[in-house]
Amino acid sequence: MKIALDAMGGDFAPEVTVAGALDAVAEYGIEVLLVGNEARILSVLKDKKGISPKISVVHASETVEMHEKTSAALRKKKDSSIRRAVELVKKGEADAVVSAGHSGVVMATSLFVLGKLQHVDRPAIATIMPSLTGNFLLIDAGANVDCNPINLLQFGYMGDAYYRAIFNHDNPRVAILSIGEEDSKGNELTRDAFKYMKNAQFNFIGNIEGKDIFQGGAEVIVCDGFIGNIALKVSEGVAEMILKMLKMEIANLRTGKLGYLLIKPALRNFKKRTDYSEYGGAPLLGINGTSIISHGRSSAKAIKNALWVAAEMASKGVVKTISQSLKDFNQVRADVKG
Amino acid sequence: MKIALDAMGGDFAPEVTVAGALDAVAEYGIEVLLVGNEARILSVLKDKKGISPKISVVHASETVEMHEKTSAALRKKKDSSIRRAVELVKKGEADAVVSAGHSGVVMATSLFVLGKLQHVDRPAIATIMPSLTGNFLLIDAGANVDCNPINLLQFGYMGDAYYRAIFNHDNPRVAILSIGEEDSKGNELTRDAFKYMKNAQFNFIGNIEGKDIFQGGAEVIVCDGFIGNIALKVSEGVAEMILKMLKMEIANLRTGKLGYLLIKPALRNFKKRTDYSEYGGAPLLGINGTSIISHGRSSAKAIKNALWVAAEMASKGVVKTISQSLKDFNQVRADVKG
Repeated sequence: MKIALDAMGGDFAPEVTVAGALDAVAEYGIEVLLVGNEARILSVLKDKKGISPKISVVHASETVEMHEKTSAALRKKKDSSIRRAVELVKKGEADAVVSAGHSGVVMATSLFVLGKLQHVDRPAIATIMPSLTGNFLLIDAGANVDCNPINLLQFGYMGDAYYRAIFNHDNPRVAILSIGEEDSKGNELTRDAFKYMKNAQFNFIGNIEGKDIFQGGAEVIVCDGFIGNIALKVSEGVAEMILKMLKMEIANLRTGKLGYLLIKPALRNFKKRTDYSEYGGAPLLGINGTSIISHGRSSAKAIKNALWVAAEMASKGVVKTISQSLKDFNQVRADVKG
Repeated sequence: MKIALDAMGGDFAPEVTVAGALDAVAEYGIEVLLVGNEARILSVLKDKKGISPKISVVHASETVEMHEKTSAALRKKKDSSIRRAVELVKKGEADAVVSAGHSGVVMATSLFVLGKLQHVDRPAIATIMPSLTGNFLLIDAGANVDCNPINLLQFGYMGDAYYRAIFNHDNPRVAILSIGEEDSKGNELTRDAFKYMKNAQFNFIGNIEGKDIFQGGAEVIVCDGFIGNIALKVSEGVAEMILKMLKMEIANLRTGKLGYLLIKPALRNFKKRTDYSEYGGAPLLGINGTSIISHGRSSAKAIKNALWVAAEMASKGVVKTISQSLKDFNQVRADVKG
C-alpha cells in the first residue's frame, strides 16, 4: 500500500508528520509519499536519518494555514500540499491520502478532486469513539450541519460497511442517536429517518440515547453532522473536566500524592483506552477514494495510526464495498415513499 | 414559602419524597404540602415521626406511572397527585410545585393548568450542569425537539433571568451551543438565532463549542431541546464510562487497592461537585407559575434541594422577572425582521 501524506498539515508539521510516516514504514511496511515543501521535508528526513526506499517526497509549493477560509484556500492555493496529496490518489499514484491539515479544506478538496460515489448525496465523517465494551463509530461527526432523512439512511449504509471492514465485525448494530428508544421519540429528522432505516439491509436496532452510546449499546451511531460534532465535543469537554477535577481533588488530599503515584499506571492505561490518537483519523465516507482526516494536534503516533487506517481501508476495498451496499438503498427509499 | 410536592412521584416514592420534605422543613423552614395517597403518606410520616405544623397532606386518588403515555395520563387521570399538586399553585394555595414523577406529564400538566406567560411561544426546561469554574445553565434541556430561532431567543431571555435570580449573578454570559465560534458556523437554526441574539438585551457572547461549556465559557447555554437532551445524556454517559473505566484500571493494579483507599475522599468530593442531586431539579420556564421537574431516581437529598430551588424561585419572583424581561423581546424581533 502506498499512502500520500500531507506532510505540511497539522500544528507540528512537518517534524511530526515525517516522524509518523517513518514509524508507519517501520511498523507496518507502508510506503509513504510525503507531500509538501521538498526542502523542509528533506531536511527533517535527514535529521531523522529517514532516507528509505519506502519514503518519497512530492513537492508542493503552497501550504494551507489553519485560519484560512475554505473557499478562498480552494480557489487560490492550487499547488497546496493538500491538493497535491489528494491528486495523487486521483491519478492512481497513491492508494489513499492522509492529512492533519485544515479539515474543511481537506474535506472539500477530497470531495472536489475525487468526486462522490453513485447514490451518495452527502459524504460524511466517520469517527471512532471509545465505549465501555470497546468502541463505536459516530457518523456524521461534522461534515453536514443540516441533513434530511435520506442522508441519515446513507450514513447508516456507509458506517455499516466501514465498521465491518475495519473491525472485521460481521453484523454491527446500527442505531440513530435520539432522545428516547421508541420510534415516536426524537425530532422530525430522526423520526423520519427511523421509517427508512427499519427497512434497510443493515442491522438497525432503533434509537439510542446519548447516555447509552458509551455503554456499548451499538457499533454504528447515526446522526446529522451538527449533532455529531456537538456529541463529540461535549464528550471531549466532559472527559477533560473530569480528569482535571479529579487531579485537583487528589492534590488537595494529605494522602493524595502517594495515592496518585499508586494509581498512576491506571490513569495511563485509561488514557490509552480513550486516546483519540489510537484511531489516528476519521475517513470522509461516500467519496470515490480513501481520504483520512486527522486532528490538527496529531502526534507522530496519531499520524502513524492514521496511515494504518488509510492502508487498511484501501487494502480492504471499503470504497467499493460502500458503493455496492448503497445499490439497494434506492429500493429502500422507493419502498417507504411508495 | 409553601411548596406543593407530588409525594407519589419518582422511583422511590412516597418514602423518599416524604423524607426529602422533612429535611427541607428542618433545614430551610419550608412548608410542604404532600400531595397523593393520604393513607400511604400518613403511614410514612408516622414511621419517620414527621408530623409537624409545617407539613400537611392533600389527598389525590390516582398516581401516574412512569410508563404511561402522556396524552392518556392527562386525559384520564384527573385526580392524579401531579394534577392536584399543580392545581394548588393555580389556586394560590402553594407558591410552587415539585415533582419527580413522569416528566412528560409534569411538563404537560404544568403548561395546561398554569398556562404560558405572555410573549412565550415555547416553555423550556433549564438544567444546571457542573463546569470547571462552577456551573452553567442549559436551556432547553428537552422540552422542545424542533425549534425556530425565536424560540431560542426566548430561551436566552428566560435563562438569563433565571440564572441572575438563583445565583445572584449580575451579568451572566449567554451563548448558543454550536460547532464553531464564528457567527457563520452552525446549522440553519443557530445561524438565524445568532442574528436575533446579538440584538438582545442580555449579555450575548456568541457561539460556544461543546468542548468549552465545561471549561466555564458561559453561564447560560442556549440550544433546542433535542440538542440539549443529547448534550445532557452524552455528558452523563461519558462521566459514567470514565469512572467505571478508572475503577477497573485501578482494580487491575497490584498497588490499586491502597491507592484507591488513599484517593477515595477525592472521588467523593468529585462526585459531590458533579452530582445532579445537588441541584435537585430543573424548572419549566415560560409558564405562569413555578414548576420544578426532578429526576425519577431522586434521592431524599435531591428532593430537599428541589424544594429549596422551588422556594428560591418563588420568593425571588423569577416568573415575574421573566415576564418583564420578555417585554423587550418583541422589539428585538421587529428590529431584525424590519
